[in-house]
Amino acid sequence: MARWVRFEAEGLTRFGVLTEGRIREYAGKLFGENTVTGREFALDGVRLLMPCEPSKMIGLWNNFRERAVLENLHKPEHPLYFLKPANSFAGEGDPITRPANYTGMVVFEGELGIVIGKRCRNVALADAPASIFGYTCVNDVTARDRLKLDPAFVHWSRAKGSDNFGVFGPCIATGLEPEELRVRVGLNGEQKQDYPVADMFFSPYEIVSRISHDMTLEAGDVIACGTSVGVCGMEDGDTVVVSIEGVGSLTNRFVSI
Amino acid sequence: MARWVRFEAEGLTRFGVLTEGRIREYAGKLFGENTVTGREFALDGVRLLMPCEPSKMIGLWNNFRERAVLENLHKPEHPLYFLKPANSFAGEGDPITRPANYTGMVVFEGELGIVIGKRCRNVALADAPASIFGYTCVNDVTARDRLKLDPAFVHWSRAKGSDNFGVFGPCIATGLEPEELRVRVGLNGEQKQDYPVADMFFSPYEIVSRISHDMTLEAGDVIACGTSVGVCGMEDGDTVVVSIEGVGSLTNRFVSI
Repeated sequence: MARWVRFEAEGLTRFGVLTEGRIREYAGKLFGENTVTGREFALDGVRLLMPCEPSKMIGLWNNFRERAVLENLHKPEHPLYFLKPANSFAGEGDPITRPANYTGMVVFEGELGIVIGKRCRNVALADAPASIFGYTCVNDVTARDRLKLDPAFVHWSRAKGSDNFGVFGPCIATGLEPEELRVRVGLNGEQKQDYPVADMFFSPYEIVSRISHDMTLEAGDVIACGTSVGVCGMEDGDTVVVSIEGVGSLTNRFVSI
Repeated sequence: MARWVRFEAEGLTRFGVLTEGRIREYAGKLFGENTVTGREFALDGVRLLMPCEPSKMIGLWNNFRERAVLENLHKPEHPLYFLKPANSFAGEGDPITRPANYTGMVVFEGELGIVIGKRCRNVALADAPASIFGYTCVNDVTARDRLKLDPAFVHWSRAKGSDNFGVFGPCIATGLEPEELRVRVGLNGEQKQDYPVADMFFSPYEIVSRISHDMTLEAGDVIACGTSVGVCGMEDGDTVVVSIEGVGSLTNRFVSI
């Protein structure tokens, strides 16, 4: 079990394993061969970056029983998902920014993020754990009032694709049992979401197996497993924290720029 | 006016300008500073690659008047778009592959592709031309029977995101006036699509300006401007050619693997 971080120190992008406020640096590839360099950095002396650079981020919709009951939805036949673009990717401490020309509601959605460990396609359910590198916290930020402006087209890409709307981090944790985890979200210190991963319609292993039959997954790709109840809007200056035991806390501030 | 290509020769990925069957190689960055190397390659001695590596591909829906009339749709308030993931990107000559576990209809959609030239956001309409590097042919391949399987969720990402479903190339052509162009598609030599870019609800300049207010666009990002009438299904072994005068022809074969 390890918590891998990407960070900037002394002008270079580096990666390593986080332990009690210190980062043990590694060299090589996070998703390939790597070796410890022998250098250590104090966590409070570096800038954490998003823990990897995904080729794509997939986000699930309607994946929790408790939320589905509230919204009068049922378990889908197959995981339902949208894509978040690279401009939306952001990490620990980055600002979540209000889109230009938009005054409507912007909501947080705290989610478990799966991080793929190696290129894979058509993965059998039994092989899914071996395709997963680890887990991260995701805040799937959404400009909710942009979702259904057009009666003929639910605009997922526009509502979910703004800059810094795909926040994930602070690390990628390995060796976790996803079914035992809970996702918690605090807004300005007040708990808004607290739900068990075990309430998913499609478990992380099922998600990886099913989606890998639709498209090739690459090392570093992130799949946000969908959110449950408790989502709400953010006001300028709000601080939102997504926490998962074993992964840690992902903290970001919502701002207008 | 130039036709930029990316290609593989002598084991290396290179880029250059295509003229009458020969490629004049450049070094540096396609979307930055570059200089001619003095080397030339015969087109038929190299392997063409997708002409750039986008951080995202955006695809428009409902952007043509003639098609909207047929489908009883109207001009939207804002461009409507989905995203195609990196695993879908492919280039000239690459096979278009039938997704695993899918026996339904796979359609071609011939489209004009805008290639962004530099990072930009909140671009005024008058500044849009300066944000565009050039134009390419796009085949926005779609597993159409996967679009509306779930009554509560139109599954754009699944239907449009399979491997090699986002084909573009063979080059990026600079110096074109988009309003004068036509998009043509041939299937096994028979013309299936032939429509004018001028029939768009949102012109390429309007598209870039509008979408850059939703999200940052990066150099090399591709925006497929949507398709018009004439789309139809492909059978195994079919050859599909998307052609735009000044850009050239993008040729791919549809196969099951």
